Amino acid sequence: MDRILRVNLTDLTTRSEETPAAWAGLGGRALTSTIVAKEVPPACHPLGPNNKLVFAPGLLSGTSASNSGRLSCGAKSPLTGGIKESNVGGTAAQMFARLGIKALVLEGVPQGDAWYGLRVTKDGVEIREERELVGSNNFAVLDVLEARHGKKAGVISIGTAGEMRVTAANISVRDPSGKLRSHGRGGLGAVMGSKRVKFITLEEEGAPGIQIADPEKFKAASRVFTKALMDHPVSGTGLPTYGTNVLVNILHEAGGLPTRNFTAGRFDGHDSICGETMHDTIVARGGKPRHGCHAGCVIQCSQVYNDKEGKYLTSGFEYETIWGLGANCTITDLDDIAMADSIMDDLGIDSIETAVAFGVAMEAGILPWGDGKEMLRILREEVGRGTALGRVIASGAGAVGRTYGITRVPVVKNQGIPAYDPRSVKGIGITYATTPMGADHTAGYTIATNILNVGGQVDPLRKDGQVELSRNLQIATAAIDSTGMCIFVAFPALDVPECLPALIDMINARFGAALTGDDVAELGKTVLKTERAFNMAAGMTPVHDRLPEFFRTDPVAPHNAVWDFSDEEVDAFWNF
Amino acid sequence: MDRILRVNLTDLTTRSEETPAAWAGLGGRALTSTIVAKEVPPACHPLGPNNKLVFAPGLLSGTSASNSGRLSCGAKSPLTGGIKESNVGGTAAQMFARLGIKALVLEGVPQGDAWYGLRVTKDGVEIREERELVGSNNFAVLDVLEARHGKKAGVISIGTAGEMRVTAANISVRDPSGKLRSHGRGGLGAVMGSKRVKFITLEEEGAPGIQIADPEKFKAASRVFTKALMDHPVSGTGLPTYGTNVLVNILHEAGGLPTRNFTAGRFDGHDSICGETMHDTIVARGGKPRHGCHAGCVIQCSQVYNDKEGKYLTSGFEYETIWGLGANCTITDLDDIAMADSIMDDLGIDSIETAVAFGVAMEAGILPWGDGKEMLRILREEVGRGTALGRVIASGAGAVGRTYGITRVPVVKNQGIPAYDPRSVKGIGITYATTPMGADHTAGYTIATNILNVGGQVDPLRKDGQVELSRNLQIATAAIDSTGMCIFVAFPALDVPECLPALIDMINARFGAALTGDDVAELGKTVLKTERAFNMAAGMTPVHDRLPEFFRTDPVAPHNAVWDFSDEEVDAFWNF
Repeated sequence: MDRILRVNLTDLTTRSEETPAAWAGLGGRALTSTIVAKEVPPACHPLGPNNKLVFAPGLLSGTSASNSGRLSCGAKSPLTGGIKESNVGGTAAQMFARLGIKALVLEGVPQGDAWYGLRVTKDGVEIREERELVGSNNFAVLDVLEARHGKKAGVISIGTAGEMRVTAANISVRDPSGKLRSHGRGGLGAVMGSKRVKFITLEEEGAPGIQIADPEKFKAASRVFTKALMDHPVSGTGLPTYGTNVLVNILHEAGGLPTRNFTAGRFDGHDSICGETMHDTIVARGGKPRHGCHAGCVIQCSQVYNDKEGKYLTSGFEYETIWGLGANCTITDLDDIAMADSIMDDLGIDSIETAVAFGVAMEAGILPWGDGKEMLRILREEVGRGTALGRVIASGAGAVGRTYGITRVPVVKNQGIPAYDPRSVKGIGITYATTPMGADHTAGYTIATNILNVGGQVDPLRKDGQVELSRNLQIATAAIDSTGMCIFVAFPALDVPECLPALIDMINARFGAALTGDDVAELGKTVLKTERAFNMAAGMTPVHDRLPEFFRTDPVAPHNAVWDFSDEEVDAFWNF
Repeated sequence: MDRILRVNLTDLTTRSEETPAAWAGLGGRALTSTIVAKEVPPACHPLGPNNKLVFAPGLLSGTSASNSGRLSCGAKSPLTGGIKESNVGGTAAQMFARLGIKALVLEGVPQGDAWYGLRVTKDGVEIREERELVGSNNFAVLDVLEARHGKKAGVISIGTAGEMRVTAANISVRDPSGKLRSHGRGGLGAVMGSKRVKFITLEEEGAPGIQIADPEKFKAASRVFTKALMDHPVSGTGLPTYGTNVLVNILHEAGGLPTRNFTAGRFDGHDSICGETMHDTIVARGGKPRHGCHAGCVIQCSQVYNDKEGKYLTSGFEYETIWGLGANCTITDLDDIAMADSIMDDLGIDSIETAVAFGVAMEAGILPWGDGKEMLRILREEVGRGTALGRVIASGAGAVGRTYGITRVPVVKNQGIPAYDPRSVKGIGITYATTPMGADHTAGYTIATNILNVGGQVDPLRKDGQVELSRNLQIATAAIDSTGMCIFVAFPALDVPECLPALIDMINARFGAALTGDDVAELGKTVLKTERAFNMAAGMTPVHDRLPEFFRTDPVAPHNAVWDFSDEEVDAFWNF
């Protein structure tokens, strides 16, 4: 039976507990949200001793199932003030699972000024005071920890942003190629920083590994599932070829590419930053257009993006980041954006939140529109040095808006709105408004159906069907986020009839269970309701399920679309 | 019949309307809160076109009643996100009243970059584009407007902080001596700045003046009222002699003087900053220990504080400001604090919010504890120039805490907690927690009874009776704030039996009405409930009626007191 490991930073003790029966069927987001909801007082200060930071691999993590290597991290978010789950690839989820660790829970905060590293092995977790790496950014942390523990060790770390406890700080996880991936959203790096944990290492030696209850059934289901992933045009062709950045031209065409801080829906410079251009640039410079964020990924939407000299510059270079600094800030030099992506990874700040913050900063006149070089200077010299300006930017879009008195601030629950204009892609607006996570496209990715015609067609410009679409996707996503599966398995799951049953078969084969599709949907609903109840107890109301006022009053070209849902229509999301 | 003047900044039009019958019996806070609650969409952006900024003199303003010259200003607050009323002395309330203007309502926001001045005369209000004074601070604005309109003109203005729309920005009002007083709290200056109104002037020439329905009855009641004010030891002796700063030693003695960002309840340096020292310094330097903020004030708790050379330095130099930069920031040089007071007045930022922000800034290591010179430099060179650091400080204590990841942040509803530790003076904690204004001592000043034994005795260290005390005082205050009366009339009103009936008699004599004490209490209740309903519709919940977590977990010396009310006990405040 997998165990729950607890680390109390207040008294520097650790505990290994049997998994309570009620948590046995939970993993990933279902488990982090359940633990946070049960153990964290909703009104507590997110950076104080009563918040907890919970890591949990998914139900299928550690198995050979394709794309099952996602790690969930949860806490009360210092960015939104509500519950947060953010998941990530890399090697840690699979190592936690093979080590028989169902969740790692960080509790309390140290009394003094010391920093700590945690070392997770088959024997449990050990707390060690850390001096060398305090003040270092993520790349240096990865290098030093590789030297200490070898290339195979897993690493979870924060950069200086997390040490500064700014609300765009993220948590980084080592990937199979020694680079990093991020628990990006919601400021979880600030929570880790508040607990003065600089990093967590994982070593697998002697790990019990995964027991599959019915290996034959598992293998059979796994084959069906993998085939569905590879046959679907989005997960099998589009994402592997162009990465997520395939979306720049698609959203531009749809008029849903938020441009110049959400004042237009198309960007004249789209050709300079689109997936097609990026693909050709990568190939010409000897990079890799395909790259997986974790072992077992068959989609490989990541890439290795080299600079002009053919030297490694960044990877995990996502559409939302490129949109955010590109169209949203009108920066057209993809190399500047790639360099920014690398710097943000190193500092440990969420590239979506930071990019949305830069859009508001440009509106405020802090730097000129489209000035990639000044954006890079601010990242290096202001955020990197923790100046007041750097801290404001690294506190996210809402903070920049409040500090500079700006009214066009694209946030919900104080989290920056990503990459898809909710006026012209209305389904995603319902997701932004209602997800307990704050504006988060991954919580119910209606773009699949609104724009890519996956799982049917729902006209992005009309209100009809959007609430149902977002509801169904959010329920499904909450369940998928609990399995350790990458969200992109949703594309085949929506279109290929045998995909979802195969996923459920794998879970049943892994645990000797007999879950049905209804059980899985029920799990998704329970997760959402648990998260919402936490937010309500933390002081949120349906008024927090609203898009910013300007989406209602300012029409966006080319469709002159506005956000026209009534409050009642939005609130109907929760009728399930 | 008095009229409602409206200025629409979106289309640059003005309107003069008859007062609706339902508003005829309202003035001051009752009127501003009623208009805001009726006309401002609770979820709107406070700096956007849908917020309104409402000025209203009290019911007795403009009459000869002692201490009746307070002007209320209301809006949705950009600091708290809730409804706000802040009142002020100066000459404007009396001029509005004599001009027959029941309220002035600023609506909309201009499309372009122009700034405006408003000129109020007997003929109404006129909008003029303003260029000369844009970028000027309040003292220069007062000088230039005196040159333009003469010494008798009333002035309402914002400094550069209001232009920057920072959430500690206040609104200044000219006083009879040509200095200024402030609508201090809640960032109303940012709302005025968002409407691009740099100032409002008032000229009384040809004003209709005040009609008293029953002059003899008014005179008789006024005499009784004034006598009560002058006979009471607090309003008749303590405040006139030492100003509000009489409280430093009293609160130090009581162990309720928050020190070093609320980590202790007594301040070793209290002697350097106390009212007694201040009085002697003022006298020695040829200043004035007594000075009124408006014509007709018989308390005269203000003063003229000169510098070492005997030159005017500041006035309206309040206990809460001196506490905030003194004990709270451990600055012991009263001249530094006086200079800061003058700079804050000039820039147009709330001296309470800013002082609480400096306490958090010192905790964050932005500047050393007790460093008055660096505090002055930050005010001049950072806030004054609108740097990122300056904007963060001038966004208030909550903003500093969020930007620097600090957990000891003394705010309620994001408004800084003033001058009285709620752990050791528990009644005021109930007021901080429950008032719809955000932490505001003036909303229900339990210090009167907890510490000064006015209106009875309620032990400050015990929970018994605090909720009732705060409730009764908040209801009374909401009513008093509607009359134009200074809150300090509450001292005699609590102790002298004939005081409150005399106040009601004056209102009845003024309007030919027949209000009873019950009617006045009912008015206070209605105001509070109206304000709370607005806040709830804006997204607040009872969770927003809570003190910060650290008051519950960190005991404060010398009494080792903690905040020990249950949520249910606090929420019982609203049982009326």
